[in-house]
Amino acid sequence: MNIGIKNITALLPDGENVKPEVTSVYVSGKTIAAVGAAPEGFKADKVIDGKDRLLMPGLINAHTHSYMAFMRNAADDLPFMDWLFGRVDPIEQKMTDEDAYWGACLAIMEMMRCGTTCFNDMQMNICQTTRAAEESGMRAVICRGLVGNGDDEAGSSRLKQAFDEMEAFKDCDRLSFRLGPHAPYTCDEAYLRIVAQRAKEAGLGIHMHLSESSSEVVNCRKDYGCSPIELADRCGLFELPFIAAHCVKADSNDMDILAAKGVSVVTNPASNMKLGNGFAPIPEMMKKGINICLGTDDAASNNSLSIIHEMSLLTLIHKGTCRNPETVSAQDAFRFATINAAKALGLDKETGSVEAGKKADLAIYNMKSPSMWPVNNPVAALSYSANGTECETVIIDGEITMDKGEYLTLDAERIYFETEKIRERIC
Amino acid sequence: MNIGIKNITALLPDGENVKPEVTSVYVSGKTIAAVGAAPEGFKADKVIDGKDRLLMPGLINAHTHSYMAFMRNAADDLPFMDWLFGRVDPIEQKMTDEDAYWGACLAIMEMMRCGTTCFNDMQMNICQTTRAAEESGMRAVICRGLVGNGDDEAGSSRLKQAFDEMEAFKDCDRLSFRLGPHAPYTCDEAYLRIVAQRAKEAGLGIHMHLSESSSEVVNCRKDYGCSPIELADRCGLFELPFIAAHCVKADSNDMDILAAKGVSVVTNPASNMKLGNGFAPIPEMMKKGINICLGTDDAASNNSLSIIHEMSLLTLIHKGTCRNPETVSAQDAFRFATINAAKALGLDKETGSVEAGKKADLAIYNMKSPSMWPVNNPVAALSYSANGTECETVIIDGEITMDKGEYLTLDAERIYFETEKIRERIC
Repeated sequence: MNIGIKNITALLPDGENVKPEVTSVYVSGKTIAAVGAAPEGFKADKVIDGKDRLLMPGLINAHTHSYMAFMRNAADDLPFMDWLFGRVDPIEQKMTDEDAYWGACLAIMEMMRCGTTCFNDMQMNICQTTRAAEESGMRAVICRGLVGNGDDEAGSSRLKQAFDEMEAFKDCDRLSFRLGPHAPYTCDEAYLRIVAQRAKEAGLGIHMHLSESSSEVVNCRKDYGCSPIELADRCGLFELPFIAAHCVKADSNDMDILAAKGVSVVTNPASNMKLGNGFAPIPEMMKKGINICLGTDDAASNNSLSIIHEMSLLTLIHKGTCRNPETVSAQDAFRFATINAAKALGLDKETGSVEAGKKADLAIYNMKSPSMWPVNNPVAALSYSANGTECETVIIDGEITMDKGEYLTLDAERIYFETEKIRERIC
Repeated sequence: MNIGIKNITALLPDGENVKPEVTSVYVSGKTIAAVGAAPEGFKADKVIDGKDRLLMPGLINAHTHSYMAFMRNAADDLPFMDWLFGRVDPIEQKMTDEDAYWGACLAIMEMMRCGTTCFNDMQMNICQTTRAAEESGMRAVICRGLVGNGDDEAGSSRLKQAFDEMEAFKDCDRLSFRLGPHAPYTCDEAYLRIVAQRAKEAGLGIHMHLSESSSEVVNCRKDYGCSPIELADRCGLFELPFIAAHCVKADSNDMDILAAKGVSVVTNPASNMKLGNGFAPIPEMMKKGINICLGTDDAASNNSLSIIHEMSLLTLIHKGTCRNPETVSAQDAFRFATINAAKALGLDKETGSVEAGKKADLAIYNMKSPSMWPVNNPVAALSYSANGTECETVIIDGEITMDKGEYLTLDAERIYFETEKIRERIC
């Protein structure tokens, strides 16, 4: 399908920032064919009028666990151990593969609502989030969460599942895969080394939780004599494309390692605050040149999957902790949520900016809304004013997946129905 | 008009918290006639089906400057002095009374969108926000921002304007008034004493900025040998019903004074972070029993007027600063944004809870939305998951002012048109 988006304020690359410019954007098949003048002979099957609209690259949620969406607000204002062992774990024990699938469908609905076109997910039930992503038209990077010790059977079996899943979905070019060793406290050093070796052989990247809480750091130092980040490094994991979720407790030495090894960090402001872990040292990481991106984490630890909400939190909280209104700007947040995340996922040739030749992963916001009007600065508006529902149209891989807020690739009523049944049964 | 809201999940008072309960609520004229069984002979002119809906008291924005809405995103990521003197002040110099009116209209549109039914405002152009509030159907407490020294002419003239405005709007019972000495750095001690005396004579409360920034405290100590809170106290202002906006820099002694004098504090998390002032000591204030409420501040310092957004920030940031997931719960945030604010404004007999006999100030949320579903805990959902646009219906003083997201008392297109013209002219 050919789509012409006419006379729209588009956020176009401008060095490392974006710049609003009124232009037209032409989509041909899966690709952005041109920005500015129409390609020769271009015939639009659909024309979108850009008046009062804002076009931007689709947002990227660089860390989540989609399947947990039905646990939203099932565990709040609780100490971490009560949250995990009193509420989340017992629900997960009762959860079926089908539950995980419907949870992921609900998560994708919510992510798409604000213009998220790609997400990086760690799941525990293989093929479920993957199936939901494939059916919904979303772009996704998926890993099976790996937990294990040395070459114990459970750990090996989970690794095998991860590869089985990749095989099962190898024909969907919107999906890619990583290995997902869960965390230093759920994988021992021997297992981490095995995962690193297997990833290296298969040419895969890694997605792992690192340095999320003080207790993780204390226990890691006790068990291994080093920080979680040093442990991952010495296991060879940082020789691979690596996405580290959280890094709230990274110290200066840890950050130097992350910078030197080109590790991408996903910060998850809501989750880190809500679970009482605090604030990741993002301003320091920026100074060290670390590639930072933004994630929501899951609906039990957040409890929103809106990247717009995270952009708001990110740009505000560091101004608060640093007592400096210039810290972490709206442009920074936008970069974290788009091109930085694309780089982290190895997808920056495909997505993360509005440029001819890239895949058409696009979000269109209606700026004529009480939250964003008048538009003095659309980039600032996204972090400081938007609530995410100003998003009207979402295009992923050239396909319109949401139009005027209506889902075209998801059966919303069925998803509401199924997730409510799950909630009644196991939450 | 009689409105029957049938079989709805309502947040009803439960001690100092609220409790969700499926019930019916009957509105007769301006008043909640009954909760539960219909009053004898009740005939509904309109019936609202409560399926998948959440009924709550209208939210209260306890500190804002509505007229500034057209400055949204005109001044971001800047040092405070550049923000104020480089951007905001030059715009205000060019602003007319009519501009202030349209700004307030836009602000009211945004506030109403998430179910705000009452706001506490400090304006600089008398009668403008007041007129917008009167026409829109909103409940409001208005003050003319007072700036002056001793009994200088400017200060006296502003006080006179404040009383002229009260006289002009005395027939609108949705509106009430306070005196609004701006801050310790814009009013000297002699003027504060005059304002206190005039308020006492007229039986008026006070709305004032206090202890917002470190420089304010440093300068106050230099000029007066005491903190801003001590200064307000020694001027007799705390003998009156008093709403103190910010109090970010309140120390333990200040908080003891606020508690002893029954001063209500409005915390404005987004504004305090965005301008680099930091985090108000809300957990400590709660321990001291201070009545805390929630505000957005203005669209140049925030840049959102959504109280739902503030509830999210409030409940997250203090968990972050205290490293404690139990600090400032969703129930606390809901109380701050409803009954606590009603108490602060002297309106708790009229509004702030769903109870028979109170004015019908109500908001109805559609819980069947990607952000809130499934509903494990509706109170938690408001702070941690909602974006505010789940609000479908707003009733103020018994009048439906928003229905299915459409404004019934505001001309949205005209407001968009006028505020864009203002932006082009002076921003």
